[in-house]
Amino acid sequence: MKEFFKVTTIEAVLALRKSFGCAGTERVSIEQALGRILAADLLAPSDIPGFDRSTVDGYAVRAASTYGASEGAPAYLAVVGSVEMGCTPIQVVGPGQAARIATGGMLPPGTDSVVMVEHTGVIDAATIEVYRSLAPGQHAVGRDEDAAKGQKLLVAGTRLRPQEVGLLAACGVTEVNVFAQPRVGIVSTGDEVVPVEALPQPGQVRDVNAHTLAALVRQCGGQAARYGIVPDRYETLLSVCRQALAQNDMVLVSGGSSVGTRDLTVDVLAALEQSRILVHGVSISPGKPTILAQCGAKPFWGLPGHVTSAMVVFMVLVRPFLAHLAGWTNDAPVRVPARLTRNVASAQGRVDFVRVRLTHQTGEIWAEPILGASGLIRTMVAADGLIAIDRNSEGLEQGAAVEVLLF
Amino acid sequence: MKEFFKVTTIEAVLALRKSFGCAGTERVSIEQALGRILAADLLAPSDIPGFDRSTVDGYAVRAASTYGASEGAPAYLAVVGSVEMGCTPIQVVGPGQAARIATGGMLPPGTDSVVMVEHTGVIDAATIEVYRSLAPGQHAVGRDEDAAKGQKLLVAGTRLRPQEVGLLAACGVTEVNVFAQPRVGIVSTGDEVVPVEALPQPGQVRDVNAHTLAALVRQCGGQAARYGIVPDRYETLLSVCRQALAQNDMVLVSGGSSVGTRDLTVDVLAALEQSRILVHGVSISPGKPTILAQCGAKPFWGLPGHVTSAMVVFMVLVRPFLAHLAGWTNDAPVRVPARLTRNVASAQGRVDFVRVRLTHQTGEIWAEPILGASGLIRTMVAADGLIAIDRNSEGLEQGAAVEVLLF
Repeated sequence: MKEFFKVTTIEAVLALRKSFGCAGTERVSIEQALGRILAADLLAPSDIPGFDRSTVDGYAVRAASTYGASEGAPAYLAVVGSVEMGCTPIQVVGPGQAARIATGGMLPPGTDSVVMVEHTGVIDAATIEVYRSLAPGQHAVGRDEDAAKGQKLLVAGTRLRPQEVGLLAACGVTEVNVFAQPRVGIVSTGDEVVPVEALPQPGQVRDVNAHTLAALVRQCGGQAARYGIVPDRYETLLSVCRQALAQNDMVLVSGGSSVGTRDLTVDVLAALEQSRILVHGVSISPGKPTILAQCGAKPFWGLPGHVTSAMVVFMVLVRPFLAHLAGWTNDAPVRVPARLTRNVASAQGRVDFVRVRLTHQTGEIWAEPILGASGLIRTMVAADGLIAIDRNSEGLEQGAAVEVLLF
Repeated sequence: MKEFFKVTTIEAVLALRKSFGCAGTERVSIEQALGRILAADLLAPSDIPGFDRSTVDGYAVRAASTYGASEGAPAYLAVVGSVEMGCTPIQVVGPGQAARIATGGMLPPGTDSVVMVEHTGVIDAATIEVYRSLAPGQHAVGRDEDAAKGQKLLVAGTRLRPQEVGLLAACGVTEVNVFAQPRVGIVSTGDEVVPVEALPQPGQVRDVNAHTLAALVRQCGGQAARYGIVPDRYETLLSVCRQALAQNDMVLVSGGSSVGTRDLTVDVLAALEQSRILVHGVSISPGKPTILAQCGAKPFWGLPGHVTSAMVVFMVLVRPFLAHLAGWTNDAPVRVPARLTRNVASAQGRVDFVRVRLTHQTGEIWAEPILGASGLIRTMVAADGLIAIDRNSEGLEQGAAVEVLLF
């Protein structure tokens, strides 16, 4: 039996991302911006909010008019007007004077702060007493306190969360330049694999991998296209892979788990135009028989046939490539610190990924390893995430601190 | 100044979810199932994988044929055939016999385990030697090891991740019953608020809240519809709110931050058909002036005008209601344990939510509070999540253990 694998480390595989460019850009409306990756820095087009703004309901004053005021010795101010919401107050409010203002109102000329209504008393229609001394700027937001004109507010490569969408709105951006969503072609192989709608005969299994991988691609902001199930025949697989490569930014071949299918995948990858096999085996478990080729400017993966192995490889290796193609420079999946509920053995020389379920006990988060063969999808359904056991470790003991990469 | 607020605790507000039903159900294809909420339990339609299956490349044998085998004293077995992928082997493999099998192949009759090819040697075309002793079931998955026919695999109310989509595929489900995505109407108010495409004059601000809230709704699996900006006039606001209520499962009114706008919102909520104000003020900061009404079977929220306050209220209060409407029973936002980088003061009698940025230092995760007035959206952009400071606490000290609710 020939030895195929000159295994590559995770770090070395991830470093290969640099060999690939990223997808193009497109303009989308602010309604569609959530979750997309910004393709150009966002600069503030003007000062925001653009005027000195009250943060409370009360009276706009100049702070000096209140110096020394207290419950026992209030300051008496003349009320000279009211600020209309959304309007520019023009009347100057001088020393010893005040203007009614609501939260969000614009400070009138001559004022620099706002006294909260709770800290005032009404003497008559034209006079209030003030029980607190104010500092200049108190209970107000400066005209450029949220952003100064020209300030860099967001950098290209940022994934837009709701608050970044809000910031776009604040800047008057109704259409935004984002990176295109990478298109990922998914090819299933294996003579034992049948479509989901088929009733598998003994010896056959449904095409779980293609649907799982398509969902992973979508979850990471890519567009997934399935190319059906290809039997283990060289000419057919080559033809389908060529088509998937032409129509997508990245291709995943997966499904068959036998060594024959893997051999076939390698032969096909090698035969594709401008192809070069970069990785043939990775020092991880599960997921060792992973193949990565560069076909022109596009990455082409041969993934393990076991669905759980394919998922682990996707999360650890494929996802960072997908993020790179998507222009997503600040991708940092959430890792939750936890402690192991029991000992876990591990082989040296490779990184072992263990599925875990999170539980909260005694104020701490615990990670409970899920047992089961790597072909069993129920082990992934039962799990909340993965922990990695280092290649130099023979295992981790109960109570060990781990970081859980969440699904 | 009248005191409006008989404040309600967070727990009491959340308990009100039970007053509301959940949205209907619909059927979607497996391609659209990611992120949707399962509306009915998933039972295994048959055993999965449905046959005893090899997990390695090697030879199917009965374990007893290998008992006592070792490198020094191999067992010699007669190779009587090969298992074709995807087919049902019919030839019985007896004691002292073996059949070639690939990963994923079906175990032939008479066999109960698989010896890995690495643990065998080829003597001649019809004979191998085996260097390891096998246990029955070794290197194989049983016919019902992933699922037994009729077994409950997923419960209604589960949000479908990629692995649950894969499990649907394994069960032959091409269309799945999910809960409908709740429709959420978003009404902006405030005479100072102008559309995003407008150039705000001094005293005016763009409608940040509607876009931020729409993105939050979408992020949580709802469908958001904006109803524009309504000036602070009773008849107009009532009319728009009535329309939003008729067309949606929940309504959010937000935007104006002045007490006048809040008063108006309360008057309008009280005037809607079959309406009852359940909450008028919540003991949280920011977000105290939050209003919740029940209008028929639908929740109707008046949210604070400051965008950061509105976001906090959404995450802490509105989101759990949205999850309830969506039928999502296992919604548990990720909370990451961290330690505070510095002291944070807090008022007793309310829960304070503090925006924090996460940093990794010395093997621990630290939560760094973000300063800034609650009207400033940049403070949310700079933050990774929120921490809650309990109502009985006067604050937290540097180094205190906190849980960060991630955005």
